[in-house]
Amino acid sequence: MSYLGRKLTDAHAKVCPYHDYLLVSEIVHLLASYSSYVTPSIKSNRENFIEGFDFSPLVRKRPIITLTTDYGLEDPYVAEVKAKILSIARDAQIVDITHAIPSFDEKRGAFILLTATKHFPKGTIHVCVVDPKVGTERKGIIVVTKSGHTFVGPDTGLMWPAVSAAGIMSIYEIDELKIPPRTCETFHGRDVFAYVAAKLAIGVKPARLGKKIKHMMRVEYFEPTIEDYWLCAELMHIDKFGNIITNVSKESLMLLGPIAEKYEVELCGRHYILPLCKTYGEVPVGSMLILFGGTGFLEIAVNMGSAAEIIGAKVGERIRIRREQESPY
Amino acid sequence: MSYLGRKLTDAHAKVCPYHDYLLVSEIVHLLASYSSYVTPSIKSNRENFIEGFDFSPLVRKRPIITLTTDYGLEDPYVAEVKAKILSIARDAQIVDITHAIPSFDEKRGAFILLTATKHFPKGTIHVCVVDPKVGTERKGIIVVTKSGHTFVGPDTGLMWPAVSAAGIMSIYEIDELKIPPRTCETFHGRDVFAYVAAKLAIGVKPARLGKKIKHMMRVEYFEPTIEDYWLCAELMHIDKFGNIITNVSKESLMLLGPIAEKYEVELCGRHYILPLCKTYGEVPVGSMLILFGGTGFLEIAVNMGSAAEIIGAKVGERIRIRREQESPY
Amino acid sequence: MSYLGRKLTDAHAKVCPYHDYLLVSEIVHLLASYSSYVTPSIKSNRENFIEGFDFSPLVRKRPIITLTTDYGLEDPYVAEVKAKILSIARDAQIVDITHAIPSFDEKRGAFILLTATKHFPKGTIHVCVVDPKVGTERKGIIVVTKSGHTFVGPDTGLMWPAVSAAGIMSIYEIDELKIPPRTCETFHGRDVFAYVAAKLAIGVKPARLGKKIKHMMRVEYFEPTIEDYWLCAELMHIDKFGNIITNVSKESLMLLGPIAEKYEVELCGRHYILPLCKTYGEVPVGSMLILFGGTGFLEIAVNMGSAAEIIGAKVGERIRIRREQESPY
Repeated sequence: MSYLGRKLTDAHAKVCPYHDYLLVSEIVHLLASYSSYVTPSIKSNRENFIEGFDFSPLVRKRPIITLTTDYGLEDPYVAEVKAKILSIARDAQIVDITHAIPSFDEKRGAFILLTATKHFPKGTIHVCVVDPKVGTERKGIIVVTKSGHTFVGPDTGLMWPAVSAAGIMSIYEIDELKIPPRTCETFHGRDVFAYVAAKLAIGVKPARLGKKIKHMMRVEYFEPTIEDYWLCAELMHIDKFGNIITNVSKESLMLLGPIAEKYEVELCGRHYILPLCKTYGEVPVGSMLILFGGTGFLEIAVNMGSAAEIIGAKVGERIRIRREQESPY
Repeated sequence: MSYLGRKLTDAHAKVCPYHDYLLVSEIVHLLASYSSYVTPSIKSNRENFIEGFDFSPLVRKRPIITLTTDYGLEDPYVAEVKAKILSIARDAQIVDITHAIPSFDEKRGAFILLTATKHFPKGTIHVCVVDPKVGTERKGIIVVTKSGHTFVGPDTGLMWPAVSAAGIMSIYEIDELKIPPRTCETFHGRDVFAYVAAKLAIGVKPARLGKKIKHMMRVEYFEPTIEDYWLCAELMHIDKFGNIITNVSKESLMLLGPIAEKYEVELCGRHYILPLCKTYGEVPVGSMLILFGGTGFLEIAVNMGSAAEIIGAKVGERIRIRREQESPY
Repeated sequence: MSYLGRKLTDAHAKVCPYHDYLLVSEIVHLLASYSSYVTPSIKSNRENFIEGFDFSPLVRKRPIITLTTDYGLEDPYVAEVKAKILSIARDAQIVDITHAIPSFDEKRGAFILLTATKHFPKGTIHVCVVDPKVGTERKGIIVVTKSGHTFVGPDTGLMWPAVSAAGIMSIYEIDELKIPPRTCETFHGRDVFAYVAAKLAIGVKPARLGKKIKHMMRVEYFEPTIEDYWLCAELMHIDKFGNIITNVSKESLMLLGPIAEKYEVELCGRHYILPLCKTYGEVPVGSMLILFGGTGFLEIAVNMGSAAEIIGAKVGERIRIRREQESPY
């Protein structure tokens, strides 16, 4: 690496906690001061030094911070979380995953985190707050995944499905002594997790915000089981269109054998023979189908209609699925 | 143009697909390397070269991408669209127009796009997804307008009112071969349209994402007609305040003659004589009025109240309007 | 200050209305042209000039603009406000505080502004629009606070609680002649307040958008009073969790004497003896408590439940609180 290259790389390490703009100005600074340092012999090769240097890895991208909470959008809570983040990481791209998790519904929160977080680019920081035990002895943790994401939230199992799917690299217990004192114990989403996420976003290492630990709370939410040729699963979520989303992944469904054209579905005491489609429009308007939708999980849907309304299904109910039986007659 | 000017302009063209920061660093790069190139005679005029150069057009502004969907805010779908965009165009300013279009209601989506998109600055990219035919043979298109906007969405007429009002410059059919392979056919909002919008945002030309075509699906949603001195129109939208918004533009109303002070309105089987006001406060609290509101279309409103609730009107109903008749008595 | 320092500071003043990127490029510009100006004696000290110069204050941070309205998220209104802002201040970080203020409910808007705005960093601009008198003779104002925030909205008292808590520094009446002509008088949120906020965000001084005035409309919304050992207060807001938020600050509660462990609360005709907790989990699931929550005000809550649902309370109702009476028996 050239002399300038080394200087710039050193500079990069130094300014890493700050923003792009500062970094660019630091480069300007270095380039400008550089000409005073160079010896005549280096000077003649100056152009080569600079020409050959790739600036792009030096330019930090804006950090992305996602928020998944049960705070709703009617109260100022989400805005206060964002205020905290922007007070520290002004350049953050904050993305709401959803704030409509039903109050205290950790299981729903865990499912949404599992389906949504994986679509974000490497380096994304996810703030996860469905936290009925806020202010009690439950820990706050930072989880770094093998997929290059960082999750921040309560150690209650909420983040377990998402981080275990992404591959856990390391876990840190947030150290209260590293968090500014606060006047209220009911809003860790703002006072602890947003603070930690913002610090991480400007380059603070997790190890400076807590101590490494080996275990986190686990919950095995999402594993369908086979019983008597039936795949026994659960309704995880009903989306805005009335699509009924289960915890059945393609891998789970293949526990029943190779993917078939039709399946028998038992739900709310009724049986349905449903085609496994690729898109809603494959069946007539108003007809029911199953497909692997945008979440990656099997959903029961109605073309141009609401399956949840027609079936009367609710989140948490059991569902059983088997390959369509050839009639014995 | 000066030597440096040419160098910078070339550099601009080269780095156009990337971000502002890179561009700035490229300028630094060029300026720094520049002094090695210049001949002594140029060198003496160096200051002039730089002084006279306008940097501002080189500095790309952050791209704006708007989203209009029927996805709602309760599911992770909108966040996944944003994840896709930010994976490609990290600097995008993403603005939600609304995600509360009633499920599958293409007409409502078209109306919202018509009223909202025109307020955005030149260069804005609009992702439009009310798409009940997703995954079927309906095409995906990119429409560039004379107003300098770009629309991305399904070729179903959804975007027609907005783009025809803005003036169609060119239409491209999105080429499936230019889109990354996907595992699901029900989420083109994320896997196709967000991808295309993000690529456009970083400077990829529409022609590299699809082939130019001559026609797009049209719908003539929004044209009131005159019958027997009545202007026959339609209720397009009811807003959060209960204002009833019609498809009657000022031009449409003038089909009845010069703007009058009062109009007779027939709606839900009842007749009202209503003053045409400039603002709600011109009539007493609780009184009904008509005005051209923020959408640019005629709305029926109640000062400090909900016209929709009082009248019991629903979107899609017919409305008839005529100039107030002088009583024959 | 060094020669270069002065040059850069001058440049900063000049480019202040523009964006970071331009500013950085201006620095590049200056640095590049600088070497043509310097005399030989200065040149030998060149490195020191640059080394000793702190670039960071020159780098303007992205302006933060918050929005608090009763516009809802179903209509395109909020997006049009953002379109206006981004047309002028492309780099703005726009944060929604909430758009779910009940229509025309200025008191609720004032309370949300009071609780939420203080969490944002210095320099934040708050656009406040609950504005039933839009288009009438009510003024539009800009209020600069001692806390370093700027509020923009109607002069109706809406902003009074927030700005008086933050300390009023100066008030400006927005001058209609400084606002672009508009075709509609019902959408000042977009056409006046968003425009003004965006201009402020790019560095335009308030004095260039209006004239300084001495008074603004005041409302004394939030002051509980003592009567007969009871603190008489009001239900200000019910949040998504069903927590009932009052206008009782810690200071107000101490009008009853030092903070006690339990209080008697009279609400909706019923009496409750409730523990004053630090967090919800201090009482059993389903039990009622009071605490100072995230808003800084006293709230009545139920651990893992909805106090509003259990009590049947509504915003605007009276509440009386006193220290728990020792039983005379």
